[in-house]
Amino acid sequence: MLIIPEKIIPDLISEQDAFTAVEAVFGAMAKKDAYNFPVIREAIGHADALYGFKSGFDRAGQVLGLKSGGYWPGNMEKGLTNHQSTVFLFDPDTGRPHAMVGGNYLTAVRTAAASAISIKYLSRKDSKILGMVGAGHQSTFQLRAAAAQRDFDKVIAWNVDPNMLGNLEKTAQELGLPFESVDRETMGQQADVIITITSCFEPLLMKDWIKPGTHIACMGTDTKGKQEVDANMVAAATVFTDEIAQSIEIGECQHAIAQGLIKEDDINQIGDVINGDHKGRSSDDEITLFDGTGVGLQDLAVADAAVRLAKDKGVALGIDI
Amino acid sequence: MLIIPEKIIPDLISEQDAFTAVEAVFGAMAKKDAYNFPVIREAIGHADALYGFKSGFDRAGQVLGLKSGGYWPGNMEKGLTNHQSTVFLFDPDTGRPHAMVGGNYLTAVRTAAASAISIKYLSRKDSKILGMVGAGHQSTFQLRAAAAQRDFDKVIAWNVDPNMLGNLEKTAQELGLPFESVDRETMGQQADVIITITSCFEPLLMKDWIKPGTHIACMGTDTKGKQEVDANMVAAATVFTDEIAQSIEIGECQHAIAQGLIKEDDINQIGDVINGDHKGRSSDDEITLFDGTGVGLQDLAVADAAVRLAKDKGVALGIDI
Repeated sequence: MLIIPEKIIPDLISEQDAFTAVEAVFGAMAKKDAYNFPVIREAIGHADALYGFKSGFDRAGQVLGLKSGGYWPGNMEKGLTNHQSTVFLFDPDTGRPHAMVGGNYLTAVRTAAASAISIKYLSRKDSKILGMVGAGHQSTFQLRAAAAQRDFDKVIAWNVDPNMLGNLEKTAQELGLPFESVDRETMGQQADVIITITSCFEPLLMKDWIKPGTHIACMGTDTKGKQEVDANMVAAATVFTDEIAQSIEIGECQHAIAQGLIKEDDINQIGDVINGDHKGRSSDDEITLFDGTGVGLQDLAVADAAVRLAKDKGVALGIDI
Repeated sequence: MLIIPEKIIPDLISEQDAFTAVEAVFGAMAKKDAYNFPVIREAIGHADALYGFKSGFDRAGQVLGLKSGGYWPGNMEKGLTNHQSTVFLFDPDTGRPHAMVGGNYLTAVRTAAASAISIKYLSRKDSKILGMVGAGHQSTFQLRAAAAQRDFDKVIAWNVDPNMLGNLEKTAQELGLPFESVDRETMGQQADVIITITSCFEPLLMKDWIKPGTHIACMGTDTKGKQEVDANMVAAATVFTDEIAQSIEIGECQHAIAQGLIKEDDINQIGDVINGDHKGRSSDDEITLFDGTGVGLQDLAVADAAVRLAKDKGVALGIDI
């Protein structure tokens, strides 16, 4: 089997590679050629850790496996990332282990790819102002991937602690984009595209602040109780997601569903838009919202891409297992 | 992290090592110091494969991880084992990958260890005749591990196809034990200990054939619908298992429970006997039955033992991930 260590992955896989891999598997999911298995997520009662697996099988791409890992809040003190993931791929023809791939960087790029895909397929083509809500480690990945999709001429950003906006500003500079710290109402008035990437448990953006034609990618909600935007905004938007069942259970849609503001049938799969089976945005005034919940197949898709790239470059370590 | 390839494991871990590891984790399970996470098992719709994960955390032993793999019925033609497993262990303090261990041989010895443990704790000390039902690949492992627990002076065996008994007979010879092929009624009349290790969907041993004082270890039933012994025999016996919830759902007890012959409270954890919290057998006339369903923590326990042994012997391959 092949080992692709974490440290070589940032130089191995580009944003575009991740975008292509995730776009293909979202398409396969909508065609029912790929499906995610049930998620295991356990508070193990040690080191305050959350540990689990996301897994699935992409029949179209012939990719089978799991991402294992979790969240260890004490890691930072030890000089390690709090989120730890590793992807394991298996040969779908024999069940033999095929590859082990460091999953930390891949998790960042697959999450960024998802919001970028939603921007490509759902935002207005003339979108000029990109709004960022949240300024954690992941936000810079979202910004980079988003910037490649539209001819933005400005980035505006809000974070609960504005002193944390430095990384986003630096990234915007690297991308050649002017950057401005704004309040949330201003963001709603100005932004054509908004990405939310926080760990909040209350709405940060209200429906009345958002202008017609905006595309919003909600990328932070992946647990029961978390919330980034007003449920009325979800109800007012045309809603798309990676996986409908997960969107309803642990995604941004959980609140609008629980409050009876939308029904399961109101949620569309982004893969249907990719496949040309749903037209996506229907007018320049429509608000579109992508609920990016994060599925195992995204992890497997980018890990598979990394394995192919590592083989091509001759940097995969072969071992006997 | 450390890699322990499949091919070095048979020379690395002894029956006694596996016994000690599984005994400890069964004890920890009964004390609620170790628990299994939900099992994922999926028919993936490719190569007729069943694929999934068993996982858990042993807080007492500080072992966290999963066994991944499944059943690929076409593998035999390709010169590979149909069952394919790999165990992945993680550092419970940080979530970092700790070891990857070939899981095929380990699965065989952990299953054998479970019935051997039941024989140590539940069979009559003066047991002389060991009965084997089933003659597949796994049966020889069960026989070897069982033979170490009592001073048996004979092995009797039955298989649906008696021509398949050669491997068991050879193993008995290697252990210095006389071997005899018998019919099932004779087995019930003679055997003091019986191990069933089949993939049957109907009872192979009836209650009325079994003599008082027998210990029966049912090791084959791990799926809804499978069955090895008469539900009335389960009802007549004092019943022990590795994990009660799994015993009821997919183990040998599923049938006696479904027919209302026993209740959940009638099923005891073998770990309580190991810990001295249940006396086990109460008389020489009692029939005892162990429902060995197979839990992820068994796999993790023997994999952890293999890692320690490989480190001691300097044969673990260290890699960067």
